[in-house]
Amino acid sequence: MGGDHAPDIVVAGAARARRQHLEVEYLIFGDEAKIGPLLEQHRDLKSAAKIRHTDEIVRPDDKPSTILRKGRRTSMRMAIDAVANGEAAAVVSAGNTGALMAMSLFSLRPLPGIDRPAIASFFPTINGSTCMLDLGANVDSDAHNLVQFAVMGALFVRTVHGIQKPRTALLNVGVEDVKGRDEIKQAAAILRSGNLALEYIGFAEGDDIAEGVADVIVTDGFTGNVALKTAEGVSKLYTTFLKGAFASTPLSKLGYVIARRAMKRVRKRVDPRRYNGAVFLGLNGIAVKSHGGTDEVGFANAVNNAIDMARRGFVDSIIMELERLSEEGVEEQEAAVS
Amino acid sequence: MGGDHAPDIVVAGAARARRQHLEVEYLIFGDEAKIGPLLEQHRDLKSAAKIRHTDEIVRPDDKPSTILRKGRRTSMRMAIDAVANGEAAAVVSAGNTGALMAMSLFSLRPLPGIDRPAIASFFPTINGSTCMLDLGANVDSDAHNLVQFAVMGALFVRTVHGIQKPRTALLNVGVEDVKGRDEIKQAAAILRSGNLALEYIGFAEGDDIAEGVADVIVTDGFTGNVALKTAEGVSKLYTTFLKGAFASTPLSKLGYVIARRAMKRVRKRVDPRRYNGAVFLGLNGIAVKSHGGTDEVGFANAVNNAIDMARRGFVDSIIMELERLSEEGVEEQEAAVS
Repeated sequence: MGGDHAPDIVVAGAARARRQHLEVEYLIFGDEAKIGPLLEQHRDLKSAAKIRHTDEIVRPDDKPSTILRKGRRTSMRMAIDAVANGEAAAVVSAGNTGALMAMSLFSLRPLPGIDRPAIASFFPTINGSTCMLDLGANVDSDAHNLVQFAVMGALFVRTVHGIQKPRTALLNVGVEDVKGRDEIKQAAAILRSGNLALEYIGFAEGDDIAEGVADVIVTDGFTGNVALKTAEGVSKLYTTFLKGAFASTPLSKLGYVIARRAMKRVRKRVDPRRYNGAVFLGLNGIAVKSHGGTDEVGFANAVNNAIDMARRGFVDSIIMELERLSEEGVEEQEAAVS
Repeated sequence: MGGDHAPDIVVAGAARARRQHLEVEYLIFGDEAKIGPLLEQHRDLKSAAKIRHTDEIVRPDDKPSTILRKGRRTSMRMAIDAVANGEAAAVVSAGNTGALMAMSLFSLRPLPGIDRPAIASFFPTINGSTCMLDLGANVDSDAHNLVQFAVMGALFVRTVHGIQKPRTALLNVGVEDVKGRDEIKQAAAILRSGNLALEYIGFAEGDDIAEGVADVIVTDGFTGNVALKTAEGVSKLYTTFLKGAFASTPLSKLGYVIARRAMKRVRKRVDPRRYNGAVFLGLNGIAVKSHGGTDEVGFANAVNNAIDMARRGFVDSIIMELERLSEEGVEEQEAAVS
């Protein structure tokens, strides 16, 4: 029931994802009177879906702390609980991010050894895509948190893109060792010395994100959130300017018609729907957050992300990796540095 | 002598700025053997310029602390000192940012009441431009610093754009009061209660920068630097994708030729050269930092920024504003909040 166009795009998105993954079954939580008729329009999904009715929903302006106490019968919480009790392999929501994070953290629990879960998502780059985290689960992060984000981000990229040792960088205001905040320098020291399943390539600056210098870019949730939204803003600025320019004269309109296939390719490469579906890393279960303003194509992508992670056993992989790290004494190395 | 293409673009840029401001005179610091021949190519500038020779330069990888001790005879330091001793009205450099900041701070001194100077620059937005600061003078900022940035940024916009009460926002990870770091919430409380020469409009998110919701966006230097460079990276991504798309087929090339005037208009609106020239706010003198990779058009813009600020008596205005604030007891209000 979450997001700007729910439940319509949620049902339509699930139906679209279903066409790519015929074996997947769906539990849809929310208002049966609204969801039922939508399922009638998507008969193929209907045969693989069950509706779990509830009247209560999380609203965009609900505070995470309040909803955590009072929201046990909301569609969002019931969907998360279905993952917690093993009924579902993953939860996908386009609703209130803070509420989804708070309830997922409460109900799914953080993985052993993880102090703070993080939100991760892919960005388009010149030559592909890069995973960035944390995008806003936390407003502050210490060196220890940043190292955990690096490990989780790298494992996520390995799981979904098959890159064995993802190139991992710490986001900073310069690439020289002396630059930046203390916690970043400390995290760098740990990442350099640790025997991790990633290739630590040093500091990256803001422009390196789109440049594609790294497979994983690690930062605190405040900076990551601002960077993500700044990028979205600039992207929208370009789209608006280009639309305006092409529509400005008969000649420019003609130029657009002639070059439209090329323009479509550009739009496709930067289409936010392709990158929709931020994942919560560090929880004992899979939770994926769709952009609230997306459409069925974007929502289907978020569902596909969830399916991908569930299929490849992401949670088990990350548990194993964290165990290996704690056995190898990365924590002692951290203690030595700090 | 600073930047990727110095002294060529510096001399050419000054010559270009000179054509718009015939009454301005120039002191050019650096290697006479290189600068002299360039001035021969720009005779109009030559008649208004003096070369101050020095062999020493600041290198891109020089550390601010080292250069502060040992760089007294560098072209950068001598140019800053010319402002400090009243010989010049402003200094413009395309060199090492950290060195320029450190030496400007030492030689020009911060203004009374300013704890930390900040770097400010304009960004293109849907409907014009917005001033953002701090872009990297500091890596951390407390509530007090953020409020000073707001006051200085608003006064800067008022001085150069004539907006009496610039709409001023604090960059945050959400627009609700409860969102973000403590120092931001405290700064918000002060900005709401203060009788300042600005209109405080609340929190802004990353995408609000390009949206143009505010005339001034205030943030700490770490976040500001990442946001600025992320925006540059996304901008480059679009430029690269568009170039590639238009060049991909004979048809798309034709489309480009037909629509090229419209495309040029887009390029012009986002042209980084138009926004070149970041200003150091909070110093007892005017210092402007040009992007190191810019060309003569961009450098001329940075020079024009410096001329603009000097002409409009920016330093005197900011001193008066800070005095007014301290008389009105904004500091007591701050104390009450923290």
